Amino acid sequence: MIQKLIQKIQKLEAPVVVGLDPMLNYIPDWITKRAFEEFGETLEGAAEAVYQFNKGIIDVIYDIVPAVKPQIAMYEQFGIEGLKAYQRTITYAKEKGLVVIGDVKRGDIGSTSAAYAAAHLGKVKVGGNFYYPFDEDFATVNPYLGTDGIQPFLDVCKEEKKGIFVLVKTSNPSSGEFQDRFIDGEKPLYEIVGEFVNKWGEQVMGEHYSYIGAVVGATYPKMGEVLRKLMPKTYILVPGYGAQGGQAKDLVPYFNEDGLGAIVNSSRGIIAAYKNEKYQSFGAENYADASRKAALDMIEDINSAVR
Amino acid sequence: MIQKLIQKIQKLEAPVVVGLDPMLNYIPDWITKRAFEEFGETLEGAAEAVYQFNKGIIDVIYDIVPAVKPQIAMYEQFGIEGLKAYQRTITYAKEKGLVVIGDVKRGDIGSTSAAYAAAHLGKVKVGGNFYYPFDEDFATVNPYLGTDGIQPFLDVCKEEKKGIFVLVKTSNPSSGEFQDRFIDGEKPLYEIVGEFVNKWGEQVMGEHYSYIGAVVGATYPKMGEVLRKLMPKTYILVPGYGAQGGQAKDLVPYFNEDGLGAIVNSSRGIIAAYKNEKYQSFGAENYADASRKAALDMIEDINSAVR
Repeated sequence: MIQKLIQKIQKLEAPVVVGLDPMLNYIPDWITKRAFEEFGETLEGAAEAVYQFNKGIIDVIYDIVPAVKPQIAMYEQFGIEGLKAYQRTITYAKEKGLVVIGDVKRGDIGSTSAAYAAAHLGKVKVGGNFYYPFDEDFATVNPYLGTDGIQPFLDVCKEEKKGIFVLVKTSNPSSGEFQDRFIDGEKPLYEIVGEFVNKWGEQVMGEHYSYIGAVVGATYPKMGEVLRKLMPKTYILVPGYGAQGGQAKDLVPYFNEDGLGAIVNSSRGIIAAYKNEKYQSFGAENYADASRKAALDMIEDINSAVR
Repeated sequence: MIQKLIQKIQKLEAPVVVGLDPMLNYIPDWITKRAFEEFGETLEGAAEAVYQFNKGIIDVIYDIVPAVKPQIAMYEQFGIEGLKAYQRTITYAKEKGLVVIGDVKRGDIGSTSAAYAAAHLGKVKVGGNFYYPFDEDFATVNPYLGTDGIQPFLDVCKEEKKGIFVLVKTSNPSSGEFQDRFIDGEKPLYEIVGEFVNKWGEQVMGEHYSYIGAVVGATYPKMGEVLRKLMPKTYILVPGYGAQGGQAKDLVPYFNEDGLGAIVNSSRGIIAAYKNEKYQSFGAENYADASRKAALDMIEDINSAVR
């Protein structure tokens, strides 16, 4: 799947992923109203609004970006109905040829991580049948529990030719509380985690890059530079561009000399673009067109800095 | 909710939680067969088997243990249908008066953690209505992203009078890869995380203990001793007893002098007791009675060591 992702990035000249993190207040009233008319002000109504909102965006970006990254928390908050919308979003995005990165940040001890890996990337056996429960192409994974929490994901990635992105250095302000702590007086924890990601990745190599990627926030470009060198064959998923403050010039160190090695996420900046002064002339009715324009602008912005 | 948990622990003289982590191979054939007859060898069939299995156990343990801890990964692996079984299990356990600890190990940056906190402990607003999507009493949370990933959980705990258990030192063999690393030449990462848990807990105090607990594995009793002193008002959820190797004598340091402060989990050792040589005379037909006996033995074993 890393091969497919890279090919799409190259073909579209767009190292960009659109985060589908639909808060209800991002969704235009006309969509919510229509969903509530059909299903009431219920979890089902909210989930329908979320899905229709996503569908509108997917329809206008699938030909310009390689991937989408639904954030499962934004669906899980609407319970079972929300998770159905998560599943429908994945299915629809894949139908449109998009690579789907499930931002699930799962991680646990061995047998439990194996269940998460099966849920999101693999299959489960029920009697004589096999089922792919959520079937994302990639998933994000939390490393705090160490190798035996990661290995089941590696095994499933190998079997299904899928991938994960392991949290190394996250984009949020307090990420440094633990991640930046100096270990043994030598180097910060995020470097130690980066070294493990590099090692884990050797088990599941694609042509030039591993199936095992890393998450490194755009908000910490100096750390990104160090991590880029430490994990030369690791694809880096970069959150934090745009709304969180990361700028295109900050992204340069995340890329390798081949022009590859990083894919930059934007969520709010794309999906809620119509609420941004810059794109508000589109109007709520044409929110998706605003998202397309914002995605094109982002691609141009990033390419102008990193190519 | 920490008050309710403590009161139940005291009344039942049982600092024990039963982990509802139903792998399909733990479930007696007669339950699976019946579920498959009704729903086929489908995700729905698997989920029904899981729920009926749980229900049988809940029916015979609700009067002897204070709490259950369903592990969401074991349900998530069966997709939407599995998550419905997770929800049904929570609802049924609460009807029986059990405290429910959702072992979800969620954690993300601010707004995303807020969505997880709403999903599992709080409520969401849809139009003019409020819904409690999964509505566990407690949830487990991963600390890797730092305070701004934890704060939304604290806020919801305050509002809903619920609680969380933050991963500090997990029970698995490779937990030390990151958690045991020495920070600034001074102390291991798990101690730093423990200090944060202690501090976070001050925001949401119950009578003697905070709503904010910690997970510390039974498999590392010396670390448990240090963490107990470091977090005097923190309830410790202790996994790793039984099948993972932790013994009753190892649990002593996890308790305070008031005889409180820790609750010990056993999953496989209780729910799959009928597969254990010691309890196999019960037979698969009476798997739940085997679980009850195993729970009673566990309570006696722990009390003999710690009281």
